[in-house]
Amino acid sequence: MAANQVFVPCDVPSKARETYIENYRLVTRDSDRLMLFAGDQKVEHLNDDFYGEGIHEDDADPEHLFRIADQGRIGVFATQFGLVARYGMDYPEVPYLVKLNSKTHLVKTAQQDPLSGALWSVKQVAKFRDRSGLKVVGVGYTIYLGSTFEAQMLREAAEVICEAHNYGLLVVLWIYPRGAAVKDEKDPHLIAGAAGVASALGADFVKVNAPKKEGASSAELLREVTRAAGRTKVVCAGGSSTDEKKFLQGLYDQIHTGGASGNATGRNIHQKSLAAAVAMCNAIYAITVEDKTVDEAVALLNEPCT
Amino acid sequence: MAANQVFVPCDVPSKARETYIENYRLVTRDSDRLMLFAGDQKVEHLNDDFYGEGIHEDDADPEHLFRIADQGRIGVFATQFGLVARYGMDYPEVPYLVKLNSKTHLVKTAQQDPLSGALWSVKQVAKFRDRSGLKVVGVGYTIYLGSTFEAQMLREAAEVICEAHNYGLLVVLWIYPRGAAVKDEKDPHLIAGAAGVASALGADFVKVNAPKKEGASSAELLREVTRAAGRTKVVCAGGSSTDEKKFLQGLYDQIHTGGASGNATGRNIHQKSLAAAVAMCNAIYAITVEDKTVDEAVALLNEPCT
Amino acid sequence: MAANQVFVPCDVPSKARETYIENYRLVTRDSDRLMLFAGDQKVEHLNDDFYGEGIHEDDADPEHLFRIADQGRIGVFATQFGLVARYGMDYPEVPYLVKLNSKTHLVKTAQQDPLSGALWSVKQVAKFRDRSGLKVVGVGYTIYLGSTFEAQMLREAAEVICEAHNYGLLVVLWIYPRGAAVKDEKDPHLIAGAAGVASALGADFVKVNAPKKEGASSAELLREVTRAAGRTKVVCAGGSSTDEKKFLQGLYDQIHTGGASGNATGRNIHQKSLAAAVAMCNAIYAITVEDKTVDEAVALLNEPCT
Amino acid sequence: MAANQVFVPCDVPSKARETYIENYRLVTRDSDRLMLFAGDQKVEHLNDDFYGEGIHEDDADPEHLFRIADQGRIGVFATQFGLVARYGMDYPEVPYLVKLNSKTHLVKTAQQDPLSGALWSVKQVAKFRDRSGLKVVGVGYTIYLGSTFEAQMLREAAEVICEAHNYGLLVVLWIYPRGAAVKDEKDPHLIAGAAGVASALGADFVKVNAPKKEGASSAELLREVTRAAGRTKVVCAGGSSTDEKKFLQGLYDQIHTGGASGNATGRNIHQKSLAAAVAMCNAIYAITVEDKTVDEAVALLNEPCT
Amino acid sequence: MAANQVFVPCDVPSKARETYIENYRLVTRDSDRLMLFAGDQKVEHLNDDFYGEGIHEDDADPEHLFRIADQGRIGVFATQFGLVARYGMDYPEVPYLVKLNSKTHLVKTAQQDPLSGALWSVKQVAKFRDRSGLKVVGVGYTIYLGSTFEAQMLREAAEVICEAHNYGLLVVLWIYPRGAAVKDEKDPHLIAGAAGVASALGADFVKVNAPKKEGASSAELLREVTRAAGRTKVVCAGGSSTDEKKFLQGLYDQIHTGGASGNATGRNIHQKSLAAAVAMCNAIYAITVEDKTVDEAVALLNEPCT
Repeated sequence: MAANQVFVPCDVPSKARETYIENYRLVTRDSDRLMLFAGDQKVEHLNDDFYGEGIHEDDADPEHLFRIADQGRIGVFATQFGLVARYGMDYPEVPYLVKLNSKTHLVKTAQQDPLSGALWSVKQVAKFRDRSGLKVVGVGYTIYLGSTFEAQMLREAAEVICEAHNYGLLVVLWIYPRGAAVKDEKDPHLIAGAAGVASALGADFVKVNAPKKEGASSAELLREVTRAAGRTKVVCAGGSSTDEKKFLQGLYDQIHTGGASGNATGRNIHQKSLAAAVAMCNAIYAITVEDKTVDEAVALLNEPCT
Repeated sequence: MAANQVFVPCDVPSKARETYIENYRLVTRDSDRLMLFAGDQKVEHLNDDFYGEGIHEDDADPEHLFRIADQGRIGVFATQFGLVARYGMDYPEVPYLVKLNSKTHLVKTAQQDPLSGALWSVKQVAKFRDRSGLKVVGVGYTIYLGSTFEAQMLREAAEVICEAHNYGLLVVLWIYPRGAAVKDEKDPHLIAGAAGVASALGADFVKVNAPKKEGASSAELLREVTRAAGRTKVVCAGGSSTDEKKFLQGLYDQIHTGGASGNATGRNIHQKSLAAAVAMCNAIYAITVEDKTVDEAVALLNEPCT
Repeated sequence: MAANQVFVPCDVPSKARETYIENYRLVTRDSDRLMLFAGDQKVEHLNDDFYGEGIHEDDADPEHLFRIADQGRIGVFATQFGLVARYGMDYPEVPYLVKLNSKTHLVKTAQQDPLSGALWSVKQVAKFRDRSGLKVVGVGYTIYLGSTFEAQMLREAAEVICEAHNYGLLVVLWIYPRGAAVKDEKDPHLIAGAAGVASALGADFVKVNAPKKEGASSAELLREVTRAAGRTKVVCAGGSSTDEKKFLQGLYDQIHTGGASGNATGRNIHQKSLAAAVAMCNAIYAITVEDKTVDEAVALLNEPCT
Repeated sequence: MAANQVFVPCDVPSKARETYIENYRLVTRDSDRLMLFAGDQKVEHLNDDFYGEGIHEDDADPEHLFRIADQGRIGVFATQFGLVARYGMDYPEVPYLVKLNSKTHLVKTAQQDPLSGALWSVKQVAKFRDRSGLKVVGVGYTIYLGSTFEAQMLREAAEVICEAHNYGLLVVLWIYPRGAAVKDEKDPHLIAGAAGVASALGADFVKVNAPKKEGASSAELLREVTRAAGRTKVVCAGGSSTDEKKFLQGLYDQIHTGGASGNATGRNIHQKSLAAAVAMCNAIYAITVEDKTVDEAVALLNEPCT
Repeated sequence: MAANQVFVPCDVPSKARETYIENYRLVTRDSDRLMLFAGDQKVEHLNDDFYGEGIHEDDADPEHLFRIADQGRIGVFATQFGLVARYGMDYPEVPYLVKLNSKTHLVKTAQQDPLSGALWSVKQVAKFRDRSGLKVVGVGYTIYLGSTFEAQMLREAAEVICEAHNYGLLVVLWIYPRGAAVKDEKDPHLIAGAAGVASALGADFVKVNAPKKEGASSAELLREVTRAAGRTKVVCAGGSSTDEKKFLQGLYDQIHTGGASGNATGRNIHQKSLAAAVAMCNAIYAITVEDKTVDEAVALLNEPCT
C-alpha cells in the first residue's frame, strides 16, 4: 500500500495529513489491518489480569508488557500515558497508542452505570509525543453505550477524535454497550449499532466484543457489525478460549468471514511468559497483517504455554 | 427569490451575512421551503433503522445515505460530523447540516429523562467547513422539552444558534417534548409550545413531530404550531405511513393546510434501495420545493419498493 | 430628572456610566419608575398564554408582542434574545431587555425543584447590541429562591449583574420563592426577603409577585418588601384580575401605598387584540410613568376587550 | 504595632505585600484583633433578621447597616458585593469585606445538605476596589464542613485565599460544621477541627460559633479551638444573649480566656436603633480593639435598647 | 547516587529535568528511598489526631509539625498549602510536598462514597515555589479507588502528574480503595491493583496502606504490591502499633522483605512531644534512608514517649 492509497478523513487538516498517513502505514504495516496489543488492564482490571493462578509470574511486572511489545510483532501497543512515560525511553521502537480514559471494575453496574472519564487530553499526548520523540501514533477512548453517563463519554470521544486528527493521530474507540438498560451486551444487532456510533463519531478504528447469539457463528454475526461501521475499521476482541489454535482460528474467521480489519488482544498474550507471549504476538500478526493461514500461524507458536 | 429577499436575523453579523444568504438560498433552492434528508439515526436508533426486516440491504452500509443525498434531489443532508468527515470528500456537491448532539435510545424515559449533549461545537464545524471546502451550510441540535435535563439542552441550543449565525450557518432545532413530565408527546398545543421555544431561541427552522388529536386532522392541528413559530420556519416529520402516496399527501397537507415550510424525512427514504430512495427524494422535493401536486410527485416514484 | 440625578451604582465603570444613565432615563422616561412589558412566556408557559379560550387570536403570532411594544407606550419590552434577533430590525424604536434565562413549566415542583439556567451571556447581548444598533438597554434573570438549585441561579445572577454594569446595561431580577422547601410563595415576609436578596446582589430592579395574606391589603403588605429592597427598585406583577379598572387600581396602590417603582405586566396586555393591548399599555403607562389617577388611566381604555 | 510587625503569609507576593499590611493594620487598628460587623444576613436569613417583633424599624432599610458601619467604631463591615456597590459611594470611609458566597435558609438540612457557592470572584472584587476607590480590604467565604457538598466549598475557599493574597486582600473564613453527618454543631472538638481546616487552607481569620458542652465554660472550651488554628486568628460569634452586659462579658472571656482574636457580631448590633447600634459597636470595639474592661465597655451603652 | 543515576520519566520536559533530579536527590538523600513525614491530618481527621487522650499537648499547635520537620531527619514534609504559606518562612530548610486535595472524615462511606477534590492547582504551587523561594519539591494527591467519584479523582490525579512533571515537581499519590463497592480495604491483591493504577498514571511514588490477610505476613504480602507498581516506588503506611520497636521492625520488613522504597508516617511521629518526635523521625530515617538495622534505629530513641 502506497501513501496515496491511505484513506485520510477530511477532518485531518493538510498540515497533519502526512503524519496521519505515516502513522496509519506504521501501525498497519501497509496491510490496512491492525494488530493492537492491548495493555490497559492495570486500571481496568487492577491486578486481576497480572497476578494469580494461571498467569505467568513475568506478568506481575508492568515492564513485561513493554518487553512483549518490543520483541513481538505487533501493530501498536495500547496503554496508559503514565506507563509510556516511565518505560517508553527504553522501548523507543514500539508504536504507542495512549488510552485516554480508564476506570476500575470495582463499582459494578448493579451499583451504578459505568463512567470512564478522560484522564488526559489529546493536546497533552501530542506535546508528549513531540517532546519525547517516541512513536506515539494514536489515542484510544472507551464508550459505555447505554450507560446513564453515555452523554459525557460520547462528547469526550467526539472531542478526542477532532483533536487527534488535528495532530495527525489515529483514534481507536472501544465501544461496549453496558449499564442497567443493556440486557445483552453481546447481542449482534446492538454491537452493530455500537460500530455505527463509531462511524458517526468519525473514529478510524472501533474495537468491539465478538457478537454472540444462540446457534449462530460469531464470525458470521460480525458481518452486520463491519457493514454498519462503514469506513471505520472494526477490530475485535479475541474470544476467551485458552486453546491457542481455536483462538487463532477465531481471529482468522473474524477477518475472512466477518469482515474485521484486525484484532485487539491483551490477556491472551501477556499472561504468558515473555517467550510464549512473543510467539503469540507473532502468530496473531501473521494472520492479521501478513494474511497467513491458521496453520502457518500455529507453527509460530514454538514456545510452551505456562 | 433574490438575495435581497432572504430574511436574515439581526444576530447574523455583517461579515457573515452573505454566507448566510447563500446557505439559505442553496438549501431552499430559493423556494423558502426546506427538504431535509435526515440521516442521524446511526446514533439515535443504532442499527435498528438500517438492518432488519423490511429494510433494504443497501441501507446496512453508511455510504448508502451519501449516495442518496448525492443522487436524489434534496435541500440538505443532516448527519453527524464523523460521517461527513469520512464520506464528504467523495460527495462534495451535497449540502451538509451537521447534527451537533445525539444520544442512543438505550436508556428509556422510564429509567431516566432524556439528555442529548452537544458532541461538537459550532467552531469545530466552521473550521471543518473552511478546511475541507465542503458545502457545510448549517447545524442541528435536538432539545427534549420537559426533560429534567431541559436546562442543559436549552443552554446549548441557544449557544449553538448564536455561534452558528456568527459563521453564517443556518440552524435547525429538533424539539421533542419528552420525559416523565410529558404525558402526550403529540399534543398539538404542546408542539405549538415547542415551536414557540424555537422562535424564542432564534432558530431558523424547527423540526417537530406531526401533532395528533383524536378526531382532528394533523395538518389542521399544525396551524397552531406554525403560527406559534412566527418567523422560525416549521419542518415536520413525515407520518409513519408506508403507503407512499398517503405519505406524500401528508406532506402536501402539512405545507398547504398546516403552514409548514418543508419536511424532515429519514427512514421513509433510506430504508429503500438506492433507486427507490432517490425516487422518493425526488417526489418529496417536488412537493416541497417545486410546489407540485401529489399526483405529479407520485409519478416520480418509478422505482419499486423493497 | 436630569442625567446627574440618576443613581449609578459604583460597580458601573466610568467608561459605561454615560450608557447606564441613558438607558435608565430611556426606560423610566425620567420618572424613576419602570413600566416593563413582559413577553418571555413563549418559553416559560409555552403556548398556553398565546392560544386558547379567552385569548385574542392576534396573540398566536409572536409578532403581536412587537407590534404592541412598538405602538403602545411602555418603558421596556422584555423577551428572549431569539425573538429580538428575528423581529428587532422591524421595530428599532423599542427599548429591549433581554431575558437571559428561561425554563418551561413542564417539570413541576412536585417532580423536581425549579432550575432556570442562563441561555445567553451578557457579553453576547452586548455584542448583539453593538452590531445590530438596536436599543438593547438591559438584561433580565429569574431566581427561584428556595430551590435546591438556588446556588446556581444566585451565582449566575451575580455574574449577570457584574457583567451588565460593565457594559452600562440595566438589570432586572425576577425573584420567586419556589421549591419543595417553600410553603407559601406569596408570603409577604418571604417576598421581602427576596427583594433583600436582589439588593444584596446589586440589581437595579427586582420583579416580585404581589404579596398576599389573609385579611391584609396587598399594597400595604408590599411596604415591607419595598423597604427591604433599599436602593433596588421593586416592580410588581399585576394581579390576575380581569377587570381592568381593578387591575389599574391595584397597580396604583402598589406604587402609592406599597412603594413600588413600577410594574411588570404581560398577559394582561398581550392576550388582547392589538388595539386593546395598546390601550392597556397606555393606561398602565399613565399610572406608572405619568403619575395619572386611576380614572385618567381608565379613560384611555377605549378599545373593547376580547 | 508597626508595619514590620504585621505577620504576612508567604503566599502574598511582594507586589501585594504593602497592600496586605495596610489592610491588616486598618481593620485591626494595629491591635492584632478584629471587630467584624457582620451584615450578610439579607441573603442568609432573608428578612427574618431585619423585620419583625423585637427588631427596631430602622433595621428594615438596608442603609441602616451602612449608617452603623459609618458612625460606629468597627474593624470591618462584611456584606455582599451588591450592597457595597449601591451604598458604598455614600460611606467611603468604611472598610469593607465582601462576602463572596451566601445561601438562603429555605432549604433545611433535613431536605438537603447545605451548599453555599461563590457568587463573585476575587478578581471581580479587586477590580471593583480599584475602580471605585472604596476601602475594600478583604473577602469572606463560608464553608459547611461535613456537608456532602464540602468538596466544592473547600475548593472555592482555597481558591479564594490564593487569589485574595495575590491582590493583598485579607480573608475571613466562616466555618460551620453542618449536614446530615453532623450531630452536634457546637461540639468544641469539632469546632477546633474547623479552625484547623482554616489554618490548613491558609485563612487569615476564621469565624466559628462559640463551642458548647454540658457543664463547661464556652470560653475555656474555646482554647482548644484557638490552639488548633495556629497562626490563623479566631473570631467568634457572640452568644444569643440579649442581655448586653452578659454579651460583652462573653466576648471579653472569649478573648482573655479562650484566646480569640476578636468577634463577628451582626444581629446583636443592627437589630437596634441607629443610636443603640452605634453604642453597641463602640462597646464591642472597646473590648476587642482597645483592650478595655467589661465595665468600661458597658459604660458606653448610653442608648436604650428597643 | 549521582545525578545521572536518577530515573527521570520522559514526560518531564528537558527544561524541568534538572529541577526534577535535584528534587529527587534532595528528598531521597541519594538513597532512592523516601521518608515522608505526613502532616495533612488537620483536614483529613480534623482535630482528632492532634488533641485528646494519649496525644502530647505539643501537638495541639500546628507549628509542632514544622518544628519536627525542621529538627528531625526526614525526606519530605507533606502538608496543605495554607500551612506552608503561614509557617514556611520560619522553616526554610524543610523540603515541602504540598498535598493538593483533602476531605474531612465527617461524611462516612455509609452515607456517601468518598470524594476528595483538588483544592489547589500545580500551577499555583509552582508559582508559590518560585515566589517564596521555599523548597517545594513535590505535590501529593489522594485517590479513593472504587468510590463512585473515582472518575473525578483519577482525572485530577492524571492532570496533577502531567502538570507537576512540567515544573520538575515530584508526585506522590495516596491510593486507598474505599466506597460501598470495597469490601476489604486491606486486601493485598486490591492494594497491588492500587499500586498498578499509580504506575499507569505515572506517579513517582505511591503511598498505600500495609496489606493484611489472615495468616500471612504483611511484608510478604507487600511483594505483590511493589511488583505491580513497577517503576513507581511504593511507600507504605506504618502499622498502628504503639510499640516503637515493633513499628520500626515493620518498616524494616516492608523495605527488606516487601520491596517498599520507604514509608509515610504521621501520627506515630507528631503525637509525641517535640523531642520524642524528632527521635522517632531519626530512627525511621535511619532505617529508610541510611539502611540501618532495627537495633541501630531503636538506639536513637532516647527520648521517653508520652
